[in-house]
Amino acid sequence: MARWQPDARERLRAAALDLFDERGFDQTSVAQIAQRAELTERTFYRHYADKREVLFQGQEKLNDALADALATAPELGPLAVADEVLARAATFFDDERRPFSRRRQRVIDANPELMERERAKMAHLTDAFAAGFRERGIPDVRAAVAAGTIVSAFQVTFGLWVAPDETRGFTELGRAVVGELRAALAADAAL
Amino acid sequence: MARWQPDARERLRAAALDLFDERGFDQTSVAQIAQRAELTERTFYRHYADKREVLFQGQEKLNDALADALATAPELGPLAVADEVLARAATFFDDERRPFSRRRQRVIDANPELMERERAKMAHLTDAFAAGFRERGIPDVRAAVAAGTIVSAFQVTFGLWVAPDETRGFTELGRAVVGELRAALAADAAL
Repeated sequence: MARWQPDARERLRAAALDLFDERGFDQTSVAQIAQRAELTERTFYRHYADKREVLFQGQEKLNDALADALATAPELGPLAVADEVLARAATFFDDERRPFSRRRQRVIDANPELMERERAKMAHLTDAFAAGFRERGIPDVRAAVAAGTIVSAFQVTFGLWVAPDETRGFTELGRAVVGELRAALAADAAL
Repeated sequence: MARWQPDARERLRAAALDLFDERGFDQTSVAQIAQRAELTERTFYRHYADKREVLFQGQEKLNDALADALATAPELGPLAVADEVLARAATFFDDERRPFSRRRQRVIDANPELMERERAKMAHLTDAFAAGFRERGIPDVRAAVAAGTIVSAFQVTFGLWVAPDETRGFTELGRAVVGELRAALAADAAL
């Protein structure tokens, strides 16, 4: 049977995003989110640990997938790994998710504490990539610079993808970003 | 005449670092810092806006200098600019400053709020570099990835430089990091 009403988790998420947008993240309570979704607070807490989790759920799954992309990459050059990582990320950031990601970004950009959480996440991802490179036998310093390059490519790609008027998909943008990186570095190689 | 006693600013900084190390940053008050330095709180506030400023003073000067290194770099390839930026940074991070930088890093690593300030600083530096590249005619996406690469090289170099047993200077480490980046990317170019 088709379900005409989105499930509780989705309804709560939509209600939360609406309220975060309207009033700001700090000014929104779980009680208000539940009320807007016409559900109970108890139901909210069955799906999310707190209101921040509405924005950050799934993060670990993404990070694990990206770490796996590095662990299984056939080549270990940073740009080749960036290609693998961005291709894996594209399976998360599809067109269905995009409207949510855009609204989520708007909420985060408006809140210094949430921005900090995003930055901390990127710092952890960088550490995870550096560890992944070391596990594959890349020496420390090279592992660190390669990890930084890849996270930077991811951030730029993601930033383009959530930009208001962007229509290209994550995969296409990721290829463009790695292409730019390659071209920028080729300019150096020619010196 | 030689001054046998370090000046007030230095004494306050040394006292603050001692206390941050001993008790933790959050558990240290300006009153305690002044007392340890055998100076008044009023003198403290003549030199620093608050206790955080003891750790972050000079940041803007550094950022301005690094932005200037990009603005005046003879070549715009990201690795060539990284060389220029790290050479400029080396004029700040000399052997005289190193013991302070190491202790400062230990204090920051022990405190999530200070780590956040460091991360925010790096995010702003990345934005400043991206703007610098754009001002020199580099298109948006390339500017963003180049900026990310350079900040990453800076972070790795700085991390090595403040590591407990490292004896190589900032300049030498910077060259090694950019060399690693070049070598890592050459592995890709060979694909």
